[in-house]
Amino acid sequence: MKKRSLSGIKPTGTIHLGNYFGAIKQFVDLQDEYESFVFIADFHAITTVQNKEELSKNTLNITMDYLACGLDPKKVCLFKQSDLPEVTELTWYFNCLTTVPYLERATAYKDAKAKSKEASVGLFDYPILMAADILIQDADIVPVGADQKQHVEYARDTAIKFNNAFGETFKLPEPRILKEVATVPGIDGKKMSKSYSNIIPLFGTDEQIRKAVMSIITDSKAPADPKNPDECNIFAIHKLFLKGEELESLRKRYEEGGLGYKEAKDMLYEKLIAFITPMREKREYYENNIEEVKKILKEGAIKAKENIKAKMELIRNNVGVNIN
Amino acid sequence: MKKRSLSGIKPTGTIHLGNYFGAIKQFVDLQDEYESFVFIADFHAITTVQNKEELSKNTLNITMDYLACGLDPKKVCLFKQSDLPEVTELTWYFNCLTTVPYLERATAYKDAKAKSKEASVGLFDYPILMAADILIQDADIVPVGADQKQHVEYARDTAIKFNNAFGETFKLPEPRILKEVATVPGIDGKKMSKSYSNIIPLFGTDEQIRKAVMSIITDSKAPADPKNPDECNIFAIHKLFLKGEELESLRKRYEEGGLGYKEAKDMLYEKLIAFITPMREKREYYENNIEEVKKILKEGAIKAKENIKAKMELIRNNVGVNIN
Repeated sequence: MKKRSLSGIKPTGTIHLGNYFGAIKQFVDLQDEYESFVFIADFHAITTVQNKEELSKNTLNITMDYLACGLDPKKVCLFKQSDLPEVTELTWYFNCLTTVPYLERATAYKDAKAKSKEASVGLFDYPILMAADILIQDADIVPVGADQKQHVEYARDTAIKFNNAFGETFKLPEPRILKEVATVPGIDGKKMSKSYSNIIPLFGTDEQIRKAVMSIITDSKAPADPKNPDECNIFAIHKLFLKGEELESLRKRYEEGGLGYKEAKDMLYEKLIAFITPMREKREYYENNIEEVKKILKEGAIKAKENIKAKMELIRNNVGVNIN
Repeated sequence: MKKRSLSGIKPTGTIHLGNYFGAIKQFVDLQDEYESFVFIADFHAITTVQNKEELSKNTLNITMDYLACGLDPKKVCLFKQSDLPEVTELTWYFNCLTTVPYLERATAYKDAKAKSKEASVGLFDYPILMAADILIQDADIVPVGADQKQHVEYARDTAIKFNNAFGETFKLPEPRILKEVATVPGIDGKKMSKSYSNIIPLFGTDEQIRKAVMSIITDSKAPADPKNPDECNIFAIHKLFLKGEELESLRKRYEEGGLGYKEAKDMLYEKLIAFITPMREKREYYENNIEEVKKILKEGAIKAKENIKAKMELIRNNVGVNIN
């Protein structure tokens, strides 16, 4: 029997190459290996998006993005978090077992608090909602970026606390980190992230993608100069697409000199467009068939709900809110 | 059309005279005046009770207590909180609009934190769950003890925040405080409370009630001495049962002298037993017909659920988690 994988996707605007190689590709790769559950984290999104049009638009957009990237609804149970409000009930039970200082130690909250004293309770409590998302589906593994390992640790801690307090109920999930693509560099060499404004948009127009690629920061070596590929932001992104001989040959051209940054960028642009075009076409199909997208989410919700039914009964029985 | 009242009852062990006059009696009195909703706060109880047998036993016990005290399931919608898990979903939405410092200012949490650094997130977030309980039912008034007024203020604040963020959704509830019986004195003159060990149990045995009454603390005036009734803990409890002439005549006997504390206690004991006996019999009936109690809760849950159906749809539409 296949092990079960669970992943959440935050529905916030434009996705970029970093999202693709850091997360989406993993989900797509895992859909054959695992029994995969992927949800759109719209509950989570409300911590930042408090606008109904924007939220529902973002939810549909990210769904189309993922479908376009190769997520196959026949293989993956794709649903939105809010179609399983049971996770908020489970969050309440977990909250009763979680101390305030424990949540104060969570990295994401500490970061948010450093920026603003007025962090929301939603943000504060999010590791617990996430634990509920994971544990309610009996996930064996959770694919995450290296910087999100703590979320899985919080889920494990919480499972242990609940099992100790109320009896064996949850299995302990494992994080699955794809090390080699754990961090995708942006056009400035830092981790690609919307908050650093250093992204290459995945479903941008040709012009947007060209502009992003041409903005990749390099040193000022002349074309003829030999270059260290491992210090070049362009090469770092090439590495996402090239393997084996192709990669070695590009490396050689860097080291030998004669490859200008402009040429390296043009090559990257071509690669990107070739890579993105089939996905872009698929996305256009879904845009023109939006009812199909809604249907996929609806069917995913039905399957996900079915999957948690017995577990929720067990949880409620173990907590003692069911009176028999 | 009648206004709607909502009250929550925490299912924690033995109820006492303070609960009766401080809360239960109000609920019973209000059931004619208002369209009343009363729920057993079993979600809340999990902040302190993490034992399924104890929780479900307490839930049934408190339900029987209230029925025995005169709550009429034909007039009142009596249900348990956990049968409306929608309140935890609403709590999530509210959490996204609530800041951590705002909850840190809540009295109950400050008290808990003063006692232990390791207060639970459930306790911390409880004002918001309570706001969800109140607002989801469109309550006009919330009967509370004077010391619980802040809960209603938090619910009002939260309704305003949500309406501002997502559009008009909730009405603002008003607290209803019955001033004259707002605080019931215990056998030591302090507010009657389990945590002060100064209670007179409502459904105790004759012997337990006698013991509690005889333990009421007095000064050491002799029977013949004139006494100030307003300084006497026995008189303070008599006042709950006596009105008009009866009360005035007892007051006179205190002031004239000749009434010993022993006699005042005996009188109080007799009053208590006469008062409690019919309720005790009613409670025994329910103990012997526990399926009837479960049925009352089940029917209450159906009605309460029906009552929130349209509101939950409105909430989800306004937040943007429903995709139409």
